[in-house]
Amino acid sequence: MKAGLLVLIALSSVYGTAMANGKPFAILHATVIDGTGREPVKDGAIVIRDGKIASVGSARTVDIPKDAVILDERGRFVVPGLMDANVHLTGNDDLESLIRFEHQYDRIALEAAQVTLKSGVTTVFDTAGAFDAVITARDRINRHEVVGSRIYFGGHIIGFGGPLSSDHTAAPLTSLTRSFIDRVNNRWVQGVGPELSWMGPDDVRGIVAGFAARPIDFLKYGASGHKEEQLITFSQRVQNVIVEDGHQVGKTVQAHAISPESFDMALNAGVDIVTHCDITGPDVVIPSDTLRKMRERGTFCSILPVTQRLVDSLVAKYGKDNNFVRHNIISRQNDRNLIAAGVPLMISTDGWLDNPIEAAESDYPRMDSRIILGEGIFNALVALEEIGMPPLEILKTATLNVAKGYRVDRDIGSLQVGKSADLVVLERDPLLAARNYRTIDLVIKEGNLIDRSVLPTDSVITSQQPSK
Amino acid sequence: MKAGLLVLIALSSVYGTAMANGKPFAILHATVIDGTGREPVKDGAIVIRDGKIASVGSARTVDIPKDAVILDERGRFVVPGLMDANVHLTGNDDLESLIRFEHQYDRIALEAAQVTLKSGVTTVFDTAGAFDAVITARDRINRHEVVGSRIYFGGHIIGFGGPLSSDHTAAPLTSLTRSFIDRVNNRWVQGVGPELSWMGPDDVRGIVAGFAARPIDFLKYGASGHKEEQLITFSQRVQNVIVEDGHQVGKTVQAHAISPESFDMALNAGVDIVTHCDITGPDVVIPSDTLRKMRERGTFCSILPVTQRLVDSLVAKYGKDNNFVRHNIISRQNDRNLIAAGVPLMISTDGWLDNPIEAAESDYPRMDSRIILGEGIFNALVALEEIGMPPLEILKTATLNVAKGYRVDRDIGSLQVGKSADLVVLERDPLLAARNYRTIDLVIKEGNLIDRSVLPTDSVITSQQPSK
Amino acid sequence: MKAGLLVLIALSSVYGTAMANGKPFAILHATVIDGTGREPVKDGAIVIRDGKIASVGSARTVDIPKDAVILDERGRFVVPGLMDANVHLTGNDDLESLIRFEHQYDRIALEAAQVTLKSGVTTVFDTAGAFDAVITARDRINRHEVVGSRIYFGGHIIGFGGPLSSDHTAAPLTSLTRSFIDRVNNRWVQGVGPELSWMGPDDVRGIVAGFAARPIDFLKYGASGHKEEQLITFSQRVQNVIVEDGHQVGKTVQAHAISPESFDMALNAGVDIVTHCDITGPDVVIPSDTLRKMRERGTFCSILPVTQRLVDSLVAKYGKDNNFVRHNIISRQNDRNLIAAGVPLMISTDGWLDNPIEAAESDYPRMDSRIILGEGIFNALVALEEIGMPPLEILKTATLNVAKGYRVDRDIGSLQVGKSADLVVLERDPLLAARNYRTIDLVIKEGNLIDRSVLPTDSVITSQQPSK
Amino acid sequence: MKAGLLVLIALSSVYGTAMANGKPFAILHATVIDGTGREPVKDGAIVIRDGKIASVGSARTVDIPKDAVILDERGRFVVPGLMDANVHLTGNDDLESLIRFEHQYDRIALEAAQVTLKSGVTTVFDTAGAFDAVITARDRINRHEVVGSRIYFGGHIIGFGGPLSSDHTAAPLTSLTRSFIDRVNNRWVQGVGPELSWMGPDDVRGIVAGFAARPIDFLKYGASGHKEEQLITFSQRVQNVIVEDGHQVGKTVQAHAISPESFDMALNAGVDIVTHCDITGPDVVIPSDTLRKMRERGTFCSILPVTQRLVDSLVAKYGKDNNFVRHNIISRQNDRNLIAAGVPLMISTDGWLDNPIEAAESDYPRMDSRIILGEGIFNALVALEEIGMPPLEILKTATLNVAKGYRVDRDIGSLQVGKSADLVVLERDPLLAARNYRTIDLVIKEGNLIDRSVLPTDSVITSQQPSK
Repeated sequence: MKAGLLVLIALSSVYGTAMANGKPFAILHATVIDGTGREPVKDGAIVIRDGKIASVGSARTVDIPKDAVILDERGRFVVPGLMDANVHLTGNDDLESLIRFEHQYDRIALEAAQVTLKSGVTTVFDTAGAFDAVITARDRINRHEVVGSRIYFGGHIIGFGGPLSSDHTAAPLTSLTRSFIDRVNNRWVQGVGPELSWMGPDDVRGIVAGFAARPIDFLKYGASGHKEEQLITFSQRVQNVIVEDGHQVGKTVQAHAISPESFDMALNAGVDIVTHCDITGPDVVIPSDTLRKMRERGTFCSILPVTQRLVDSLVAKYGKDNNFVRHNIISRQNDRNLIAAGVPLMISTDGWLDNPIEAAESDYPRMDSRIILGEGIFNALVALEEIGMPPLEILKTATLNVAKGYRVDRDIGSLQVGKSADLVVLERDPLLAARNYRTIDLVIKEGNLIDRSVLPTDSVITSQQPSK
Repeated sequence: MKAGLLVLIALSSVYGTAMANGKPFAILHATVIDGTGREPVKDGAIVIRDGKIASVGSARTVDIPKDAVILDERGRFVVPGLMDANVHLTGNDDLESLIRFEHQYDRIALEAAQVTLKSGVTTVFDTAGAFDAVITARDRINRHEVVGSRIYFGGHIIGFGGPLSSDHTAAPLTSLTRSFIDRVNNRWVQGVGPELSWMGPDDVRGIVAGFAARPIDFLKYGASGHKEEQLITFSQRVQNVIVEDGHQVGKTVQAHAISPESFDMALNAGVDIVTHCDITGPDVVIPSDTLRKMRERGTFCSILPVTQRLVDSLVAKYGKDNNFVRHNIISRQNDRNLIAAGVPLMISTDGWLDNPIEAAESDYPRMDSRIILGEGIFNALVALEEIGMPPLEILKTATLNVAKGYRVDRDIGSLQVGKSADLVVLERDPLLAARNYRTIDLVIKEGNLIDRSVLPTDSVITSQQPSK
Repeated sequence: MKAGLLVLIALSSVYGTAMANGKPFAILHATVIDGTGREPVKDGAIVIRDGKIASVGSARTVDIPKDAVILDERGRFVVPGLMDANVHLTGNDDLESLIRFEHQYDRIALEAAQVTLKSGVTTVFDTAGAFDAVITARDRINRHEVVGSRIYFGGHIIGFGGPLSSDHTAAPLTSLTRSFIDRVNNRWVQGVGPELSWMGPDDVRGIVAGFAARPIDFLKYGASGHKEEQLITFSQRVQNVIVEDGHQVGKTVQAHAISPESFDMALNAGVDIVTHCDITGPDVVIPSDTLRKMRERGTFCSILPVTQRLVDSLVAKYGKDNNFVRHNIISRQNDRNLIAAGVPLMISTDGWLDNPIEAAESDYPRMDSRIILGEGIFNALVALEEIGMPPLEILKTATLNVAKGYRVDRDIGSLQVGKSADLVVLERDPLLAARNYRTIDLVIKEGNLIDRSVLPTDSVITSQQPSK
Repeated sequence: MKAGLLVLIALSSVYGTAMANGKPFAILHATVIDGTGREPVKDGAIVIRDGKIASVGSARTVDIPKDAVILDERGRFVVPGLMDANVHLTGNDDLESLIRFEHQYDRIALEAAQVTLKSGVTTVFDTAGAFDAVITARDRINRHEVVGSRIYFGGHIIGFGGPLSSDHTAAPLTSLTRSFIDRVNNRWVQGVGPELSWMGPDDVRGIVAGFAARPIDFLKYGASGHKEEQLITFSQRVQNVIVEDGHQVGKTVQAHAISPESFDMALNAGVDIVTHCDITGPDVVIPSDTLRKMRERGTFCSILPVTQRLVDSLVAKYGKDNNFVRHNIISRQNDRNLIAAGVPLMISTDGWLDNPIEAAESDYPRMDSRIILGEGIFNALVALEEIGMPPLEILKTATLNVAKGYRVDRDIGSLQVGKSADLVVLERDPLLAARNYRTIDLVIKEGNLIDRSVLPTDSVITSQQPSK
């Protein structure tokens, strides 16, 4: 840390440092990798004013304001703040947590958004969760009451059940009260659950339009079943209606699609994003027709990359014929094919907070896990490198592509003038090795320097201790 | 029984009496209700020669061959042999039966076809069962080695699992060997099971075409899921392929469809029949659009009528909010709407042999049950009467409509010249009260008088006794 | 309420009114039924000083101190504070409560002790519960920090598992963490669980002696299994050791015994009390030999009386052959036989706080339930009346007998000089009808008037509301 | 095989060769190890006449009848026919077998007795099974209708449930008919099941006496529970009654005892044998007091020896803390202690027929398994050698001790004059290595040469094939 920074830090608070007392400041001499896929600019300069990028380019050509505070980051690497296209900030929906923390899920959502921010992820897209809790956390962060990753929230996966439905959990519910089960499921489902799959397009339209009008940022629906993943949740015409309802109010619409046929139907419906489109079951890869259709339509795909080491440990544990293992093997092949086909990809983890008690008791291989918030994104980046994605593309997949897929690239996603000053300074070159994304020196969000050492500022989940 | 009959009986065997030693014979003076919906002919005459109807009409006008044996059925009523559009002759797939009777399912299929024949049902359509067993029974009956209802067989419901799959049974399979589970499932599924729902149209086409080429009489596929009944098993384009594959080889194709959307997709695919189309879940009735589409396309609907008394007893037992109860209430409403919409209906029971041990131990209300072979058809006929279907229509629903839906009306389904002499003589007028279908005096199949007193000639299921 | 009382109430606090500002006070003109079995004294008088009974007798003969505050209770009936020989103040060990209220069981124990006090039960014997929680509640009440029934606590039933053991719950534990399960079980079991049943007498002695030295008031052990109730938990010699260990430190020892053989073994071991000795399984009553042995040894029996109306509703619901129903039918017969045999009986409810959510959702018949704290005791008293126990005996069963069985009759259990002034004033005569125990006018504990209207002062369990 | 033998074989039938056409015959020049613990006689001679041993000793001194057929077994080793103190000939009580083979358990019992005979075990003690089936097999073998090991049968373990009781199986019974469950359980339990543990000594006496009078050869009762193995099934006085009832009719009585306390109670009751007395749960070994008491009373112990290799494979599979694994580790320690204490031991396998389908599907380590009939005895013998039992003692444990424990040593158990000519000729010296018991050359039972190559003569279980 340099001297200039020390001054800045002195002004910082846990809610992010209002850098330089309102004065502009400049990051100088670092290699700037702007997330657009363009070649890096060595000895670069980024000027930040009022939380936005005022100018960016070579240190030699960029005009540095006279009153700017200077941050000399020579030898380091600046990338846009990372983005995770699919998280579940309140994904701790195990039975004990649901009961014990019922009234603390807004704290859990915030804890999760701080854990992600700590790892350089300045923006997350939460595709389903405890409705009120995620909205509370999102809005408090947006109002700068608290610090955390910027949250975009989809509310619920239309057509799916809640955490305590047979759709979601194998846990036996016989010893729970109906009151509690209903309360939890309603909190998550918000009236757009499995009953919609009995309905025709007209009825669905009314309900989804009502849901789309609520304070959510985008829509997600189930094209495949959740547990019965090869079955189709909605007919083509109903999927069309859901997509229209979302677009009507200017929100992007994405589909959870597992089976190839549901995937194809979602494309036909005109979705903006197919979520975890690299998951197509235990046996078949994405058909080439579907790949072509996807590229032609410019549909974005959020993927769930896993490392070979993770696959190997799963094979060792469960055997090659295990259904879950085969899903992962297939998804790696799909990722390769998607890259080859030129489909625009968005990295995602599907992650939530790691529960230390579960971690202590479980023998599920955590090494290289992708679903652990804060850790998973790095493993996913390495996984992309493993299957041969070019380094500049990897970064795009974790930044500008996500912004484009969600149609928020006017404001975030790359280091371009006018965009929010969300950026990460790395000690080592991420283009040399994806693991270098872990070498975080600084995280800046909206021009504010984040004091990573205090995150999460408060903890419900991650501070738990297993009994001895 | 009249004197002429006594002579005939003397010649009869358990495999049906070759009536009158090859000479023609005539049923005289009964009221003939021919199954076409035409008004009954009082004092009618039917001449049968070589197993077929040689002439039919008024006793005053029909020419009776000189050498004909005469059966004077004055005061009685002749109707075509009844038809059941949907049975499961080997539906005894409880765990104990599957193990105990593994090598006797051909006997069970025959026993079932004899139980149905005994109740005047000369033709049944078995839509799924133990593949080899039903085919064996069917072929033996066709070769006149044994007596039984004429069987048409659909093999398996394409896309569904077998009796020991999670798709079908809630029974825990943990204490069974994988060998046994696979053997049973493979026997039923014949390679057209749930794995097809992962596939695209091209792969499905190849597999279904192969299945269609096997010695089955028609095709049936799952448009909805079996357990996840509101979900959709196949995309529209895959359903199209299945229907084409069946039609290609001249076989009718029907869909199991429960949810309104799957129902609509099946219609679009061009199915000939929607099976139990009156079942549309616990909450919604068939939309009027779908009813209209159905009538316009002339798609047949096989229905599962239940009596009010059965519904009442279910409500008393399980309450009005029970899912299964609501299915039945909705189905009665659908039946009314289907009649009003003029959709061509086919009666069906979905029945199988009643297991006396289960009957003794179960508290499921058996009164008015529709799914008990031999009994269910009568209850279904009464249920149609209850909801106001005109008597001549009821008969058509159990005869000519079934034949037309399955495209076998050239040969069976009504008392018309040239058709197979399948008929039932009743003591009392079925047009006065549907319960009179129970008053069977004679059953004649292909011109052979059936000795109902010896049926079933052999028994695996129905002769079992509960332990004391 | 009389004028004198109004003055007193003005001085009261939630922790009980220090009556009359330290001056003695007298209850005059009520009928005094002293709990010893003696005939009631009409127009009686009780003088209370320093929390104890200073004199008791006829209003005409008892000397009333000059400075005494007078409470004129003419027309009413005074009985000793009731006692419940077997409760579980922290018996709310359903899964949701265990998780949600993990850190509030001391509040639950207090809530329970306030609910019992409100119904006139001034002393309860808690035979197993959340160890620290019951002790905390007991000690706070004893220190007069809070108001509640006086608690005697046995800790745990030696040899049994905790709330989350297979011994205790049928709830599937698969979705709970081992950390939580262990924490709960250890909290209840305190090292004297099922592992003791593998041990010989020497090892058991050491462990039980250690447990007996802890701050518990008496010992209870399992002579029968909990779930496997006809099996025997400890051999005779081990039972002997447990009883000796308790007696060594001057504590009474009781046995949970269900099967006749385990009952007999407990008697041989010299227990002071056989808990719910009227429960002897679904088929057999207590053998006459055992009854005789019990009377000869003067062993006390805590019983669980149920009303005929409750038995009838159980029969209607579950049928006569249901195991649980038969337990209740047998227990009524046992109660009759125990009375006839002259065994000293102690009333008990085995009760815990009724959870309003469970109450709303359950269809278990709550009418006349005995296991609901606050209500159950009244139903149990009525049940004893039903089977013909004389009224004065009923009262003894709920007062002096309990005190004698637990060897605390020097201080409590009857309205006798020198004992704690624990008493209940009733509006109507309990000797005329046991239901009159419900007509509570006043509850006085240790000379303090209890403000029943504010009890429980705080609520964890009973204030819960089911979701709509 | 020698020339003399070829002649004999020519006369043999599957039911055993009536050796030498009624003439005596002699086995010459082999080393004779007579099972009494005495040193082997090299160059020995055994003369057999009328199925019994006529003389035995050194070939030089024994008088060989003139007309005797001579079998020259030079270089080989003769031992008494082996005995297995605890088998379950009809132990194939998995769900599929129970249903599929319901009417074939007499064939299964015979198949099992032939598999054991083939491995040199001429006598087995079946301690519980399908009652009628084992008796049928036993009696047919005794009548020489069929060949097989000599069977002694105990009927049922008094106090335990049947194969389809919660006592015995974890298999969910929900999909079975009550008729079937009752039929199976009654067949096994024969009226002496768990209901006895609710009873006092008088009631138990009547029932057990009735059972003892049935055609069983000895009695066995449960001193510990089956599933709740640390609990005690019967009180001391009830155990006393059971033992008396058996002795009254001259039958030995043994106890199934797992926990140390139940073990001690069984000794007090005066049992002849403690079954698998080396099993004392997962944590504690047999207390030294119990060992001493056992030796003093001369109580026999049937043990279940396991090899170290089996223990190792179990540890590798389930871990050291697994309950089942710990049972096995403890049992090995117990075996060592029992040997050191000089308790008379009887080898047993607890075995039943290995089901090839289960073998193909299961990953339970079969190597060195003791519970597979025909194989298990050899593994058990090797296990005894591993823990240091002297070779002559090992043989005694598998021969004379078993005969003595069951009080049939007048007739069988050693190669002594007057006893049944049950013997095994081995290729290699069993005293050099216990594995040499596998090197069987000849098995002779009651003087008849067994044609091992045709055993089992018929197969229900062992000829099954898994599906491919």
